[in-house]
Amino acid sequence: MKFNKTLENINTYEAGKPIELVVREFGIEPKDIVKLASNENPYGCSPKVQKAVCDIVSNMALYPDDSMMKLQNALCLKYDIKEENLIIGSGSDQVIEFIMHAKANKNSKILINSVTFAMYEIYAKHVGAQIIRTASQEHNLNEFYELYIQEHPDIIFLCTPNNPTGDAINRQDLMEFLQKIDKETLVVVDCAYMEYCAYEDESKKVTPKELVTEFENVVYLGTFSKAYGLGGMRVGYGISQSNIVKELYKLRPPFNITTLSLEAASVALEDEEFVNNCIALNFDEMKRYVEFANEKKIDIIESYTNFITLCFSETYDSSVISDALLQKGMIVRNLRSYGMNAIRVTVGTKEQNSRFFELVSVLL
Amino acid sequence: MKFNKTLENINTYEAGKPIELVVREFGIEPKDIVKLASNENPYGCSPKVQKAVCDIVSNMALYPDDSMMKLQNALCLKYDIKEENLIIGSGSDQVIEFIMHAKANKNSKILINSVTFAMYEIYAKHVGAQIIRTASQEHNLNEFYELYIQEHPDIIFLCTPNNPTGDAINRQDLMEFLQKIDKETLVVVDCAYMEYCAYEDESKKVTPKELVTEFENVVYLGTFSKAYGLGGMRVGYGISQSNIVKELYKLRPPFNITTLSLEAASVALEDEEFVNNCIALNFDEMKRYVEFANEKKIDIIESYTNFITLCFSETYDSSVISDALLQKGMIVRNLRSYGMNAIRVTVGTKEQNSRFFELVSVLL
Repeated sequence: MKFNKTLENINTYEAGKPIELVVREFGIEPKDIVKLASNENPYGCSPKVQKAVCDIVSNMALYPDDSMMKLQNALCLKYDIKEENLIIGSGSDQVIEFIMHAKANKNSKILINSVTFAMYEIYAKHVGAQIIRTASQEHNLNEFYELYIQEHPDIIFLCTPNNPTGDAINRQDLMEFLQKIDKETLVVVDCAYMEYCAYEDESKKVTPKELVTEFENVVYLGTFSKAYGLGGMRVGYGISQSNIVKELYKLRPPFNITTLSLEAASVALEDEEFVNNCIALNFDEMKRYVEFANEKKIDIIESYTNFITLCFSETYDSSVISDALLQKGMIVRNLRSYGMNAIRVTVGTKEQNSRFFELVSVLL
Repeated sequence: MKFNKTLENINTYEAGKPIELVVREFGIEPKDIVKLASNENPYGCSPKVQKAVCDIVSNMALYPDDSMMKLQNALCLKYDIKEENLIIGSGSDQVIEFIMHAKANKNSKILINSVTFAMYEIYAKHVGAQIIRTASQEHNLNEFYELYIQEHPDIIFLCTPNNPTGDAINRQDLMEFLQKIDKETLVVVDCAYMEYCAYEDESKKVTPKELVTEFENVVYLGTFSKAYGLGGMRVGYGISQSNIVKELYKLRPPFNITTLSLEAASVALEDEEFVNNCIALNFDEMKRYVEFANEKKIDIIESYTNFITLCFSETYDSSVISDALLQKGMIVRNLRSYGMNAIRVTVGTKEQNSRFFELVSVLL
């Protein structure tokens, strides 16, 4: 059977190996596996969220409230925005998908960072759009601007802090860049890890309120999958001016967020203390990674997230190291497929990180 | 800002009014609201499912197992199929979306029944494809065949039992129809309500195994949203020959099913007794609707599902009746937007149905 030509070029996303798979492949007991591969919150989600979900578990038969009133209200309150500025997706991933299908097609160009979140390219391929990449590993807004002038992209994706490198753009630089972009070019500012960044460095903090107020062509992306500890529940969002949100809404499938996910995300916003504590612990533990890397003479990229990227010299091969770790039940992300001789490690709990240091030390 | 032209023609899905909205609009207490609008299982889901979900509620922070091993295995066992024949979506809706994006484009024609599930048309519009409809309200395979010959559609959707009318196609007729369709035309057989139909009339039962064995151009759709009582958890699936599944997989976003939804659906398949009891109760209660309709001289369409469609004579207006019911806290689906002077009512629990008869009697 013949299918659309665009399918010929699509690669699927390579997820961090789930614990289930390592159990199967290596016969390691689940309790002995440490997964530091997908930047999940190692402290889980708030106990209040867990209780709230169990309290409504008998509602699983009911379709979700498709207006998402409770979660919409909670997010509008958090960010001081209006409902018309918000669209909720099955992860911020789904909002990226809406954006791509709304704005791009086979004649479009999409400008992204050299190394960045893989889904931008994957969704671009869904619509047959062309990907343009900058040269530098970290976001360089001058390069972005030069390529913007040369290539006239339809969409620009900025990821701050960037995944999988951890670097973040200065707020002031971002604002100046956005001022220079014409209003027909959509700029997506993916802030999946912004909660971490905002805690660590005020000068790199970006709020959706300022973006939506100042720019008519910008979409801010946020998620519950990282700091809020709900990676398994698939809730993210886009914030933008209402005319953009209105178009994206046309592509939203009904009931795209489960009944339990809506409750989990709503209640998560009521326990910011839990999230803040997790973030503080994250940066305490991050210091141990920095010290470890210094001690072992491994280059690191300064991280504003809950993960850290260790870049190896030619002496070591990130594929060999990540495979050796996997066989010991330690799952990290090898960045070889991103063209880097590096691994990305989620900053875990104290015990998880100690285990990582112990296992890597043997390999170096 | 300019967007893709296809967006200009997209209508969004009109969901059954959620209880939350009726609370807001009419100030009715949630306990006094009866929702018979979305064909949810009125008995909920299995208590075993509820327990299993609560047992893993602390896993919400972890991304779902993207290989969906547990649920894949359970579905393969249930239907005697291979993993390569199965794709799991966020509701069978999402599989429809994959099919449309894989096979259709702005030059495509999609053949559907005159009155049928609204999402076929909505997703067709996402890709700019043209919708062709049969004339008769119930599926008439002769009409489908004539239009197939005349119009050369790229995709044909058959919905059996059909939503929102409740009628079902005879297995033998379906098989003969499928034999006549060329192998480049994709035929989707949407069996969202098949569990009900299979219980009620063996001659209308269709299994994915026979479709996937006999036809290289057919996709069977199933869901956990109806008989399995998991409408809020968004899990459905498509079953087809492996070359089709492989193409659809290219469009599957990673982690499209939540961690709790995967568990809920897997465990639901372990408690078929619960589901069978619900279905038996459904048809016991259905008899009361048939008697009520006979008594009140309201036409009904013979239903093989968990809902029944009441067709009014000119004396009554389905919009007036459904609005009047809504003000009393009884939510049903007005089919006026489908061009019918009818309402679709989910067969609820004994008490819910008694309440429906009571409220409608006042209006007639």
